[in-house]
Amino acid sequence: MRSPQEPEWITDQGGEAFAHIYRVDAVLHDERSAFQRVRVIENLDFGRMLILDDAVQTTERDEFIYHELLAHVPLCTHPAPRRVLIIGGGDGGLLRETLRHPIEHATMVEIDRAVIDATLRWIPSIPANCYADPRARLLVDDGIRFVREGGEHFDVAMVDSTDPKGPSLGLFSSEFYGQMAALLGASGVLAVQSGSPLYQQDLIAMVQQHMAPHFRWVRTYLGAVPTYPGVFWTFTVGSQGRDPAGVNPEELVERMRHIPTRYYLPAAHHGLFVSPPFLQSAMSAG
Amino acid sequence: MRSPQEPEWITDQGGEAFAHIYRVDAVLHDERSAFQRVRVIENLDFGRMLILDDAVQTTERDEFIYHELLAHVPLCTHPAPRRVLIIGGGDGGLLRETLRHPIEHATMVEIDRAVIDATLRWIPSIPANCYADPRARLLVDDGIRFVREGGEHFDVAMVDSTDPKGPSLGLFSSEFYGQMAALLGASGVLAVQSGSPLYQQDLIAMVQQHMAPHFRWVRTYLGAVPTYPGVFWTFTVGSQGRDPAGVNPEELVERMRHIPTRYYLPAAHHGLFVSPPFLQSAMSAG
Repeated sequence: MRSPQEPEWITDQGGEAFAHIYRVDAVLHDERSAFQRVRVIENLDFGRMLILDDAVQTTERDEFIYHELLAHVPLCTHPAPRRVLIIGGGDGGLLRETLRHPIEHATMVEIDRAVIDATLRWIPSIPANCYADPRARLLVDDGIRFVREGGEHFDVAMVDSTDPKGPSLGLFSSEFYGQMAALLGASGVLAVQSGSPLYQQDLIAMVQQHMAPHFRWVRTYLGAVPTYPGVFWTFTVGSQGRDPAGVNPEELVERMRHIPTRYYLPAAHHGLFVSPPFLQSAMSAG
Repeated sequence: MRSPQEPEWITDQGGEAFAHIYRVDAVLHDERSAFQRVRVIENLDFGRMLILDDAVQTTERDEFIYHELLAHVPLCTHPAPRRVLIIGGGDGGLLRETLRHPIEHATMVEIDRAVIDATLRWIPSIPANCYADPRARLLVDDGIRFVREGGEHFDVAMVDSTDPKGPSLGLFSSEFYGQMAALLGASGVLAVQSGSPLYQQDLIAMVQQHMAPHFRWVRTYLGAVPTYPGVFWTFTVGSQGRDPAGVNPEELVERMRHIPTRYYLPAAHHGLFVSPPFLQSAMSAG
């Protein structure tokens, strides 16, 4: 039996024989929502951590890597985004980064209010004040249904989802990407998280194959997130107009001039699409 | 008490409250050498792993990232390297990568024969056949003394060391870098592993400060190694001739044309020196 003095550690499994472990210095929140277990813990090294079921979703210290990569690449790929759609992203980090651009409107559709509320209360630096921005609209609703019902136009869309199981599964389907493409115009851009190139290669291939019929360009790009097991992480972007890997470097600098970032840099944009050879087969699987 | 059926796990501590853990599927080698504990274990996800004291040094599955970055950046920075010196690097991976270039000679000075032998026997894919190459000379000796005594000329040198404690401490001193510069000519290049930008920022600053008096250019570059806690890892290169970040892209392609790699790419060379903003203060600490 664990003694009361012994701190608990959380295990985030990568492979079967490899994991990241985090000491639980305090449990701030622990709730079973209608969709998942939602926890916020305090950890000396990574600060406050959001954990959904048993997977670390984001942490105070490294959240900006994932959110900046998922937001700024598609936003800079579109020549002049005005209306943006976010599916998922309940922690608010993606909406926060999106609103740094001079857009007119952003709609965020998150299925689980518990994630929104837990992050707002316990890790307020992630959503920052994004929900108070008059350009933002928050809907607690099923993103798949929202996209299927259509009726609105967006320039850029992003999907910030958990792994493809349960309620997230439909977010990776060809049908969903096709309905999404219908909401986006002739220059429309969609970016999604597409999993680990080390142990979810089938997922990357599936995303690419499911996007291909609906977008002119489909490109996978790479980031490194310290709190994701295996570290390397992919994002896949579909674009109707411009090639995401071909945006003019001077335009990137100009577009990001007044947007302070901690990870994404215009000078590194094109390098994100240059996959190391050992990941090339995974990243160009489609 | 641990039951005999329960597998052991190895813990590689990052911060105080964060670690990577690996299941020990078999212990292949466990020895206390004159310098350190040398272990080789088998792990389902990373293959065979070399562990010195309690730190994972390298693994069968991801060793190429570290070795390619530490070898090809300095070798391509020198316009025509003929003679190469490696200090440390007992697993042989750095010598293997070095010998892929059309050099005339490489001397490797490793202080601990136990590391050489354990890797040769249990992870032969890392040294490959590098010691049998007639261009290679292996000395089991104190690298600090070898450099201090001088008397030989090299074009490129690399230091593949453990953390700066015990026998490795002197490998990070200004005196050592000065003696190293004396062995290298007017176009000489030195590259060293300089630690984690997340939790060894003082080390990076020290390496930069200690190199600065002895080299015209001092540049820190970045890699991501899944089995190093915190993942991001730095290397620092001192150069007397060319700017390591300014080598002509077409020359890089030409130099690497017949050298197959799994991580390092000429197209990504310049991006290695573009540090994400959150690491800029750490990487330009000097």
